[in-house]
Amino acid sequence: MNFSARLAHAVGQKQSVLMLGLDPDPGKMPARFHRFVEQRIDQGQSFHQAWAQACEDFCREILVAIGHRLCGIKIQMAYFEVFGSAGIAAVENLLEFARSQGLMTLIDGKRGDIGSTCEAYARAYLGSGPCSADALTVNPFLGSDGIEPFLRACEESDRGIFILVKTSNPSSAQFQELIAENIAESVERWGESTISPQGFSSVGAVVGATNRAHLQLFRSLMPHTWILAPGVGAQGGSLEEVLSLRKNGLGVIVPVSRSVLYASSEADFEFAAQAEIERLWLAQK
Amino acid sequence: MNFSARLAHAVGQKQSVLMLGLDPDPGKMPARFHRFVEQRIDQGQSFHQAWAQACEDFCREILVAIGHRLCGIKIQMAYFEVFGSAGIAAVENLLEFARSQGLMTLIDGKRGDIGSTCEAYARAYLGSGPCSADALTVNPFLGSDGIEPFLRACEESDRGIFILVKTSNPSSAQFQELIAENIAESVERWGESTISPQGFSSVGAVVGATNRAHLQLFRSLMPHTWILAPGVGAQGGSLEEVLSLRKNGLGVIVPVSRSVLYASSEADFEFAAQAEIERLWLAQK
Repeated sequence: MNFSARLAHAVGQKQSVLMLGLDPDPGKMPARFHRFVEQRIDQGQSFHQAWAQACEDFCREILVAIGHRLCGIKIQMAYFEVFGSAGIAAVENLLEFARSQGLMTLIDGKRGDIGSTCEAYARAYLGSGPCSADALTVNPFLGSDGIEPFLRACEESDRGIFILVKTSNPSSAQFQELIAENIAESVERWGESTISPQGFSSVGAVVGATNRAHLQLFRSLMPHTWILAPGVGAQGGSLEEVLSLRKNGLGVIVPVSRSVLYASSEADFEFAAQAEIERLWLAQK
Repeated sequence: MNFSARLAHAVGQKQSVLMLGLDPDPGKMPARFHRFVEQRIDQGQSFHQAWAQACEDFCREILVAIGHRLCGIKIQMAYFEVFGSAGIAAVENLLEFARSQGLMTLIDGKRGDIGSTCEAYARAYLGSGPCSADALTVNPFLGSDGIEPFLRACEESDRGIFILVKTSNPSSAQFQELIAENIAESVERWGESTISPQGFSSVGAVVGATNRAHLQLFRSLMPHTWILAPGVGAQGGSLEEVLSLRKNGLGVIVPVSRSVLYASSEADFEFAAQAEIERLWLAQK
């Protein structure tokens, strides 16, 4: 099955368009993890090793608690790259754990470069290496020859990508306003060869949930494209508006992160995360 | 000294605008490294660990041979991320080695995201972590709130960034054409607070060397901006045209990579790299 079909299967099986964004922030993690880090440092681990391990443990415990309500995970690379090689080892372990739980895996790295370099990025995240995942977020700024290596991974290795079209942040209009529609048309075209029986391709798009008019516009420009719509919750996007873009319950993925990960910073954080994901799951079901 | 002043110092001291791009490609590396990898795998190392180590060794040997003709190194992250955590450990070691050789260090990761995520990227590459460098390449697609965390690192921690303005690849016009001048004006403005006595700021720009008219246009739009100009050599850019953008010998950095790293794939690769860097050094002196 190609990526699009596998994603449709995961969404159907879990009855969930929710993907948990893993962006572990030590400052928001319960006291137990801080004590763990202090002990590890006392035992001779470096600060970065100890925190990378704590972040991995934190993410793993959350996934054990709420994985049954998710179609997949989205690993925000920046929060792991902070810890250097120890952070990337945590990514490797979390990818393996998520796969063992039957979750789809998305690396949120927003990679983009010239063709030869993107071949290396495609090998890194959509190949057979230790950080290989089902899909990768991609930045289209360099144009089609930076996209082609990722398209080959979609076509030949059944992986997926989500290309930035219009992001959710306040300054997203600054440069994107002039090119987002052009990018959207390219995304729809790039996906033509991987449209699965469910009607969507393996070349997805990132469209911020924070602007209703944009959501409708980009759905109309990309009728066969999975839309990953960040910005629901903390950033003000409406879950209802995002869900209205679905066709037969498919075609939209909603990443959720801080509202779930940090639902509580106390010892009951797993229960608080469960309550929040249950609320979201019922709202999108 | 802020980043711009340190870079000017390095260029003056070495009489070199040449920065070696480290993008180690196993397929092009001499037979000795392939034998080394086979031995390591026989001894129980993983494929990725063994190749990460071989790439580190290869880059280190090249730097020993030609470091005296460089102002710095540019680490192309994709070629290390391929090997997962083992590749990032190689990056950590190469950064430390380059610093010990007095070379400026640039992480070529083209990172870009929403503000909170870019705060994490700034900590990762312009902070105190294991992959901390003098500077980072940055993708401006998300607009100013994704740039601000990097600007703070330039202003408060004396680091530098190079923002993509117009890249060197064939399809760069596809989306950049409509926004590159707008980005250039922003880059010049973002750099205003970090202009060093030599007349350039810590907020640099990436402008491909492959189009002469573009080089002149972007220099006129960014008179106080260090221009990192990839595309000389293999991609067809002219060294002479790029050098014409200098003022008092400063304001331009020329990355060189494949023509030096793979000047020979035989046992004499270090000598071939020396001959090629000497040719380039004399041409730009």
